[in-house]
Amino acid sequence: MKAEIISIGDELLIGQVVNTNASWLGEQFSLAGIQIVRVTVVGDTREHILTAFDRAWAEHDVVVVTGGLGPTHDDITRETVCSFFDTPLVFSQLALDDITTMFRERNRPLSDLNRDQAMVPASARVIRNAHGTAPGYHFQSGEKHFFVAPGVPYEMHAMIEDDILPLLRTALRNTHESVTMLTTGIPESALAEQLDGIEGLETCVGVAFLPSPMGVRIRLTAKGTEHTDCQDALRRVENFVRDRAAEYIFGTDRQTLEEMVGRLLMERGLQLSVAESCTGGVITDKLTNISGSSAWFERGAVTYSNESKTAMLGVSSDLIAAHGAVSRETAEAMAQGIRLHSGSDIGLSTTGIAGPTGATPEKPVGLVWIGLSTAATRFAYPFYFGSNRIRTKQRAAQAALDMVRRNLLSLPQVPTILTKTP
Amino acid sequence: MKAEIISIGDELLIGQVVNTNASWLGEQFSLAGIQIVRVTVVGDTREHILTAFDRAWAEHDVVVVTGGLGPTHDDITRETVCSFFDTPLVFSQLALDDITTMFRERNRPLSDLNRDQAMVPASARVIRNAHGTAPGYHFQSGEKHFFVAPGVPYEMHAMIEDDILPLLRTALRNTHESVTMLTTGIPESALAEQLDGIEGLETCVGVAFLPSPMGVRIRLTAKGTEHTDCQDALRRVENFVRDRAAEYIFGTDRQTLEEMVGRLLMERGLQLSVAESCTGGVITDKLTNISGSSAWFERGAVTYSNESKTAMLGVSSDLIAAHGAVSRETAEAMAQGIRLHSGSDIGLSTTGIAGPTGATPEKPVGLVWIGLSTAATRFAYPFYFGSNRIRTKQRAAQAALDMVRRNLLSLPQVPTILTKTP
Repeated sequence: MKAEIISIGDELLIGQVVNTNASWLGEQFSLAGIQIVRVTVVGDTREHILTAFDRAWAEHDVVVVTGGLGPTHDDITRETVCSFFDTPLVFSQLALDDITTMFRERNRPLSDLNRDQAMVPASARVIRNAHGTAPGYHFQSGEKHFFVAPGVPYEMHAMIEDDILPLLRTALRNTHESVTMLTTGIPESALAEQLDGIEGLETCVGVAFLPSPMGVRIRLTAKGTEHTDCQDALRRVENFVRDRAAEYIFGTDRQTLEEMVGRLLMERGLQLSVAESCTGGVITDKLTNISGSSAWFERGAVTYSNESKTAMLGVSSDLIAAHGAVSRETAEAMAQGIRLHSGSDIGLSTTGIAGPTGATPEKPVGLVWIGLSTAATRFAYPFYFGSNRIRTKQRAAQAALDMVRRNLLSLPQVPTILTKTP
Repeated sequence: MKAEIISIGDELLIGQVVNTNASWLGEQFSLAGIQIVRVTVVGDTREHILTAFDRAWAEHDVVVVTGGLGPTHDDITRETVCSFFDTPLVFSQLALDDITTMFRERNRPLSDLNRDQAMVPASARVIRNAHGTAPGYHFQSGEKHFFVAPGVPYEMHAMIEDDILPLLRTALRNTHESVTMLTTGIPESALAEQLDGIEGLETCVGVAFLPSPMGVRIRLTAKGTEHTDCQDALRRVENFVRDRAAEYIFGTDRQTLEEMVGRLLMERGLQLSVAESCTGGVITDKLTNISGSSAWFERGAVTYSNESKTAMLGVSSDLIAAHGAVSRETAEAMAQGIRLHSGSDIGLSTTGIAGPTGATPEKPVGLVWIGLSTAATRFAYPFYFGSNRIRTKQRAAQAALDMVRRNLLSLPQVPTILTKTP
């Protein structure tokens, strides 16, 4: 089953709005086993919309159109789709009831513009909108489907999840399951070596490695006609990955590393504090993005100057003078300092050269020392994150959070592959 | 002049990567007066790429292709464009020199895969890549242009800015100038009121308000055949905006508020330190994204717990008990505390309820007190940023940085519109 997404709206073409609808749809459809073969973006122009409809309907089994269903005059998707399918607008009591309910709940009067949204293409099935006023439309011809949904993300999401995908899954007549395993601390090539043999393990389970600066995601997708077989095969491949790459896997699907670290701290009743130099607040920003983080995150110190490392963390100026601010000794002393000053169970630190300036032959741009201190142990390791300042901050934050995860789970501290000089 | 963008890559179709390249190109081309009429996204599949090339080249004056130029076997854009233009690959000494230089700078050995990237389509002009190994290609036929650039954003951006747009601007033969004025601290509707009359001021200057949670951008676009007239008209509208909304404008085009604050601090030889509670490190993260920030940023404290506010900033526990952690008194004491402890010239603080929990009837989710302290003054103001946790952190950071800007420029401290309760 091949599909095309058509996104409609001038604001997409001039770059005022990023087309996150298309990427969200791409992910949902891929996970459901439907291949998106093209995304076409056109403006609110009849001629361009019609050309896109023509081609998509001729060439693909499923077409999903989003955008241009609003009540104002610049939204022309409804009229254009009527003309494309050669069908008139008719009144839908179902659509009007939904619109009326929505306005009653919001305690706002119904305008004529909104009432007009209950006029729908005669040959379409109405897709109800749980979060807005514009209903969606579903045209079908044999095995082919043409859907139209609003461009407002949460309105469109609900229609896809509650109506369109269930319908297409039934049409697909096969089960399709997937899981994405999230790893960090190991490059794609090394991970592929660890997982050698995974490709041929189960013929019905596809494997994709999805690398990013924050880590590699492994997506396992099982397709099969028998639900149980399919689930079993997927679990076998998942276990194969867990057996061979256990220490690198921090979560699945949409989890984040900071969320997993927070959960571990919470379970164990422990508190974390952080002393950041080169990461400049990225770690504490990530931690405090999690609602309820005040239960396990005590404080952070962004010690950019040497003086602040001494004053806020008790790192002796002699130590900094002897080893430099970017050194194992300083990283360890920072982690120890923030732990003791805060009374937290774990102290975490970063100190490095984010660049582009500040490098020496021994300490290149991208070198970051990450340190950790608990009552039981104290250590620091060097990492090399390349020459992009922002990316170095992000990658160092991820590696630092992973150090906490590894400590809490009693895993080997640092993957050796990353501690080598480049 | 009508253009189409073709984005190539499986990762775009499955939603692994959001197509920010297309929105960036859309913005740049619109600003240059070139209309993007379609964006087509296809995967790394020869047949689909060729269909997209065919249609774009037949229907539009300018085609910009990005992606699929990497050195591995799944990148097939180069081979496909050769077959589309029926031209062989030939060796380019210029491309090899650039690639060799890049590897020498990174102190890494040149692989055969990278050496192969110096093979380019014979009928294309090579577009040099200042930041990566894949050169771009430029095919021309009469007045029509077909460009191919890598999908790596910063490599593509440089090619567009340094090569492709200057060339197209010359081809356009009319001047098209624009400036984007960046404001913060004033909602779109209030800004539009301040600037009432701007639309009719100069017929050849278009005005667009582009709102975002961080502030409203005002894009002024002048079109005309006479360069001087066009520039003059644009300057008149720009001055109109500056006269009426001076205090809200922090910069133009791609500048950031943190960059402007850093520049002001640098010019005045002042240092800033920051105490963050609810923003959790966002402010120091933004400040330290700027290369050279150690000259004017001294330290940050992320005081999430009440104890840390007392220990790191000297905020008395009696004061917190009397007024609460989210209060004018605590915000002022935090700003004062970080200033005195750091010896910096300016202390900045945030304390608020990012939510979703922690609210009371008097202190709703989204309430943030922002405080500032210098040797001469000390104050704090309340802001209301709504119920989204992440957005509240971001908006509070922006408002806090703007407070520093306003202080440095002796502007009225806080726009009254934002200090009202919702």
